[in-house]
Amino acid sequence: MPNKARADLETLYRIFTVPEAPESTLGAIDQAITDDVAGFLQTHIVATERPLEEIEADFASVVIPEEPTYVSEYTEFVQEHLVAQSVHTAAPGFVGHMTSAFPYFMLPLARLLTALNQNLVKVETSKAFTPMERQVLAMLHHLIFRCPDDFYPPWIHNSQAALGAFCSGGTIANITALWVARNRLFAPDGNFRGIAQEGLARALRHTGYEGIAVLVSERGHYSLGKAADLLGIGRDQLVRVPTDDHNRMDLHALREACRRLQDANIRPLALVGIAGTTETGNVDPLEAMADVAQELGCHFHVDAAWGGPTLFSDHYRHLLAGIERADSVTIDAHKQLYVPMGAGMVVFKDPTAVSAIEHHAAYILRHGSKDLGSHTLEGSRPGKALLVHAGLSIIGRKGYELLIDLGIERAKTFAQLIRQHPDFELTSEPELNILTYRYCPAAVQKPLITAQPEEQARINALLDQVCLLVQKHQREAGRTFVSRTRLHASRYNGEITVLRSVLANPLTTDEILATVLREECEIVRQPDIQALLHQI
Amino acid sequence: MPNKARADLETLYRIFTVPEAPESTLGAIDQAITDDVAGFLQTHIVATERPLEEIEADFASVVIPEEPTYVSEYTEFVQEHLVAQSVHTAAPGFVGHMTSAFPYFMLPLARLLTALNQNLVKVETSKAFTPMERQVLAMLHHLIFRCPDDFYPPWIHNSQAALGAFCSGGTIANITALWVARNRLFAPDGNFRGIAQEGLARALRHTGYEGIAVLVSERGHYSLGKAADLLGIGRDQLVRVPTDDHNRMDLHALREACRRLQDANIRPLALVGIAGTTETGNVDPLEAMADVAQELGCHFHVDAAWGGPTLFSDHYRHLLAGIERADSVTIDAHKQLYVPMGAGMVVFKDPTAVSAIEHHAAYILRHGSKDLGSHTLEGSRPGKALLVHAGLSIIGRKGYELLIDLGIERAKTFAQLIRQHPDFELTSEPELNILTYRYCPAAVQKPLITAQPEEQARINALLDQVCLLVQKHQREAGRTFVSRTRLHASRYNGEITVLRSVLANPLTTDEILATVLREECEIVRQPDIQALLHQI
Repeated sequence: MPNKARADLETLYRIFTVPEAPESTLGAIDQAITDDVAGFLQTHIVATERPLEEIEADFASVVIPEEPTYVSEYTEFVQEHLVAQSVHTAAPGFVGHMTSAFPYFMLPLARLLTALNQNLVKVETSKAFTPMERQVLAMLHHLIFRCPDDFYPPWIHNSQAALGAFCSGGTIANITALWVARNRLFAPDGNFRGIAQEGLARALRHTGYEGIAVLVSERGHYSLGKAADLLGIGRDQLVRVPTDDHNRMDLHALREACRRLQDANIRPLALVGIAGTTETGNVDPLEAMADVAQELGCHFHVDAAWGGPTLFSDHYRHLLAGIERADSVTIDAHKQLYVPMGAGMVVFKDPTAVSAIEHHAAYILRHGSKDLGSHTLEGSRPGKALLVHAGLSIIGRKGYELLIDLGIERAKTFAQLIRQHPDFELTSEPELNILTYRYCPAAVQKPLITAQPEEQARINALLDQVCLLVQKHQREAGRTFVSRTRLHASRYNGEITVLRSVLANPLTTDEILATVLREECEIVRQPDIQALLHQI
Repeated sequence: MPNKARADLETLYRIFTVPEAPESTLGAIDQAITDDVAGFLQTHIVATERPLEEIEADFASVVIPEEPTYVSEYTEFVQEHLVAQSVHTAAPGFVGHMTSAFPYFMLPLARLLTALNQNLVKVETSKAFTPMERQVLAMLHHLIFRCPDDFYPPWIHNSQAALGAFCSGGTIANITALWVARNRLFAPDGNFRGIAQEGLARALRHTGYEGIAVLVSERGHYSLGKAADLLGIGRDQLVRVPTDDHNRMDLHALREACRRLQDANIRPLALVGIAGTTETGNVDPLEAMADVAQELGCHFHVDAAWGGPTLFSDHYRHLLAGIERADSVTIDAHKQLYVPMGAGMVVFKDPTAVSAIEHHAAYILRHGSKDLGSHTLEGSRPGKALLVHAGLSIIGRKGYELLIDLGIERAKTFAQLIRQHPDFELTSEPELNILTYRYCPAAVQKPLITAQPEEQARINALLDQVCLLVQKHQREAGRTFVSRTRLHASRYNGEITVLRSVLANPLTTDEILATVLREECEIVRQPDIQALLHQI
């Protein structure tokens, strides 16, 4: 072997085997995170926002470097240009999106997971991780459906069945649920070999329907639109049912929509209830919707990506009453199970439901194997179920109950603060731990309600711009963070822009919430916002 | 606040904030992994396989524990029942699936990623991670398509476009590619508002086609079947074109298949070329297939999940000639980019292609935003692109070239070992770094070739069972590992079971490969296998 080639090989072996020295840059970062992750994030993420265009300049080269770079050199780049300019999603004042700090044990367990590098598509690359994941799905199944104890043993580790599917997040979970529902609706029947085999157009021809539809409230997550597109249903047939004043599906409107579908010979494929709307944290009337789904003979899916863990709470579980009648339920682990990003689940009441999407291959997923991949949308994927298993085991039902209760109570406190403040308007009452509000000066509030529609619209358009700027300035300042969205406001008979707050981080204090409002009041004094307010 | 409630809260805060003491069980594991991950895996994973049914007993309870558990207690459980019974996928003798050891810097960077907990669906929860991911996709785009330098600046950070999509793995990547292809084929046209809006049945009615088809060789990955099902196309229309003796698509058979589709008024949606078949590592005749796709006017997708990184090698890049004419290409980062599990990419030649699957929401992904989520199948997802960015930067083009060259050369060495051994039969020559073979005693080899078809079939059925048992016993012994699959063998005019070896771990030595064969020779001496061999 020539000397050059040998030297190259030795370099390569070193890259794969020699750990980072603790005194190196990367070793020091690693140690700092191990010692005090909150301190590390606080120190290394720069709060004040740099314009995205400036950051982009650091990531502009499209040529893969020819020569290797020293790890230390690369790490310095990452520290300065990536970490510093990332978002402190675990900050107690970051109450605008569905991220939170997570329990400290998640970090070392996540490292263990990375080191083990299991691939859960098949037993041959995951072994004990396969039964562990199946147990996690069974635990969630039990939490939701409360089947009797003797229900589980025949199913939990049964290769012919699955109580659900683990995946990268709620979107894949929702898509998987509707995929299963679609394939069950168009199951093999006589000469028709099923939609999986023959496709959607032939399935419709076989059954004589003009189309199939998914019904969800106007607050349904955008992933359902993706699902309708992906599954060939078409977004036109994602029927967005209007909501009542509490952002819950209006049952009269639902029945109306069903009648329209029937008239058009469109078969309802699935009715989707939401347990924790993304924007307002409301829960659909699941019990009544289960009745409707039963009448329609259609799949009842509950998107509990956000609100599912409310089931841990003895005090608030009743808010989700009816979820146990669902055919499938989505729960995100990276939300209120406090697992790091990239873990979701869909659970099916009927353990044989997933056979509608079963698939095999010659080299893995063979018939009769226990490979998890024969019932999942994804193929190769990591064993993140360990982190859910750890959360459920270490925090326990009561620990999660405490987290849920804390969030809901903090949302009530925040709502109270907003209500008491003369210059804010609460635009949706918190049912779980999400609320929306907007800045609306005291002097404007009363006249706005009694104004003529055109005048209302003019003022609201200006308040929308104020809202947008408040959210933007607050984000840029980087001390606290709320998000924004647009909601229908029945009192103005139109859509308005609102600020949105999600209260799931247990480290968020009431004092921080008071600061959020104080900051917003300071921000509205800025000239660009004052100019808008003067036009009202 | 009552004392009990305060105590609970304090416990909760501690769980979220206090790091694990280094002397604790979890702290010790964490440190051991940091100090010497290879040593940790070697020590803690029990090589000999326990029956899955026994392991399942440790994961049988479906009740979520009421009370919290001590982290140390839980960690001991995990160490004994999960880690010990997981699979040592990084072992140099684990040459049966597509996992490998990975460079040491991936571990601390993965911890950094977990700690930052960015969500790449939107800029508001990822900031610098968004341009970083866009750069990674651009680098891969440049690697594949070699567009001129001035092509990239207008597109790389353009909110209206995307050079590709990052995702959890090759399956989602392939599905995304075909989803884009399908929606582009049925784009809005006159009164027809496009398939995304109106669905597949109306799209077919509008265009007058009886159906749409995806063409791929018989060696195509099973994810394409899932895609055909999910997208409403139907598995019947995933046309599996026969291969030549080197597991590459047979071009005559392809043209034959196209004619049959035309006769049936079925429109070819996409032609899929494979750059590294999963089972045999062969590369389709991409150049010729690009010509056919052009004639058909259909989307040309290349599934380079495995073989894509061959493009790093000056010596072997030519094997993928024609890939630059693809419309989309899948590359898995958790395969030959040596990133931990759960990272894939699809790259589109035309940066506007993804607009066919664009979606928006009111609270994120707003029109004009740079949120990555408006062009991805998944929603919330982690910033794993960092690990690809790190690999490309630290290992560099030349480092990856070395890895690729090493794997291909090692496969050639292994093939030579098999060929030289009297009792083994090489069943597919390695083109990249995958090969298949089987145990076939010297005394059987020659008579088998000249035997009558029925006798051939009888003997091969016995050899299939031998192959299955060899693979099973070898896996259970836990020293080395190869996988198995079934392949068409033209010399026997039928399918046979074969052992499959993937040579991507740079720590695998020639000596280990010799051991693999030696072990297999020992295994065949076991009574169950001898009994089969005596029947030949």
